[in-house]
Amino acid sequence: MSPEQARALFRAGLRVPTSGWCAGWTQANLIAVPREHAYDLLLFAQRNPKPCPVLDVTEPGETSASLFAGDLRTDLPGYVVYEHGEPVAETSDVIGYWRDDLVAFLIGCSFTFEDALRDAGVPVRHIEQNRNVPMYRTNRMCRRAGEFGGPLVVSMRPVPTAQVADAVRVTARYPAVHGAPVHIGDPVELGIDDLDRPDFGDPVDVRLDELPVFWACGVTPQAAVMVSRPKFAIGHAPGHMAITDARDTRFLVP
Amino acid sequence: MSPEQARALFRAGLRVPTSGWCAGWTQANLIAVPREHAYDLLLFAQRNPKPCPVLDVTEPGETSASLFAGDLRTDLPGYVVYEHGEPVAETSDVIGYWRDDLVAFLIGCSFTFEDALRDAGVPVRHIEQNRNVPMYRTNRMCRRAGEFGGPLVVSMRPVPTAQVADAVRVTARYPAVHGAPVHIGDPVELGIDDLDRPDFGDPVDVRLDELPVFWACGVTPQAAVMVSRPKFAIGHAPGHMAITDARDTRFLVP
Repeated sequence: MSPEQARALFRAGLRVPTSGWCAGWTQANLIAVPREHAYDLLLFAQRNPKPCPVLDVTEPGETSASLFAGDLRTDLPGYVVYEHGEPVAETSDVIGYWRDDLVAFLIGCSFTFEDALRDAGVPVRHIEQNRNVPMYRTNRMCRRAGEFGGPLVVSMRPVPTAQVADAVRVTARYPAVHGAPVHIGDPVELGIDDLDRPDFGDPVDVRLDELPVFWACGVTPQAAVMVSRPKFAIGHAPGHMAITDARDTRFLVP
Repeated sequence: MSPEQARALFRAGLRVPTSGWCAGWTQANLIAVPREHAYDLLLFAQRNPKPCPVLDVTEPGETSASLFAGDLRTDLPGYVVYEHGEPVAETSDVIGYWRDDLVAFLIGCSFTFEDALRDAGVPVRHIEQNRNVPMYRTNRMCRRAGEFGGPLVVSMRPVPTAQVADAVRVTARYPAVHGAPVHIGDPVELGIDDLDRPDFGDPVDVRLDELPVFWACGVTPQAAVMVSRPKFAIGHAPGHMAITDARDTRFLVP
């Protein structure tokens, strides 16, 4: 399926996680804030490039982006609207919430390298189980930038121990979509007490011969919004990404 | 020599290009603008990552940076001060020009990968000839961001034809310090009429069996300042870099 076809389905109201959708195309996290907060957010991303690799930034009020020909207000499968850091709505479009001063950031998403993982024979459990990827707030704090600070958020994929090195090697080549894992093994070291209770998304099965492998996650800016409480923000619903018009090979380091 | 020792010499007044200095340490371009211009400049960098890979951004008025323990006002070997885009002073320190609202950007510099080039047996002519690297404005325009736009600036190193592939391969692994070349061969295609008359730095000899190889250059933000004319800016004197406390391997992609 092409990004355009997927976006048309989402625009029509389909609400599903996008992992496994549109093989070969880059997926992105969305975070949009009023222009007055945009410098601090862009600086937060610059200072935390592992969770917040910026792929594109719109002009204030723009509803598409250079990498995303669709409508940012309708063409993602789900959105969260924040006021003063509180989620006030979860919706399938944000037409009624969009503002002329909103600057939208597209941030790299690890779904982008899942094709490469599967090509290398590394299983992707949440796709196998037809669930959303599990995501967790960690005890690692991001570098602050102006008003924005907060915890690193990670996604987790269980990987057979014999294939952990492959998972590292393959994903390291995609630094713009979170790159190599930030942690492998014991979740307690990240302050995660129970893998079965993710902060975002769904739990997945971890088998006896597998290690949980954690990648930085583009939900991190939304966690920062919840901590830092700017007056207004719009994010994608975690796991329900913007499917862009950029090929995933564009972000592959040779 | 350590970065700290080099900075002490520059602080004492030594004015020399820094190519070949402090093997193993990352060098950086400086561009500092008042806070009111900082968002547009950070966005300009995000939209033009090849010439403007941002390594660090200070808080307004700060005189050191997380990657640079020295004093940004004194510890580079040379500076250029701009008012409304015009160079109004070339100095060995900017103590008298610094302002409390200045945000300083450290941008990756291709001097950082010159050790790796030489380790691979690729000659670096301006070091051999004890000159500054030649830099040129090109006919390629950067993506605009707010008030900032302007031409791509490149540095040039002549490379024996048999070693051009090595030069590409080695430098591609350092995307944060400009990465792979942007052009190889005929300078006219970049709008450069005469290699012997660089816009910044010194000309170097290009031999019969060599091709000129062009890398994106961190003087690009200064070229944008000259075109876009913000009320005030401070840059390093081209080739006279900030020598940081970051190891060059930090920016090496595996």
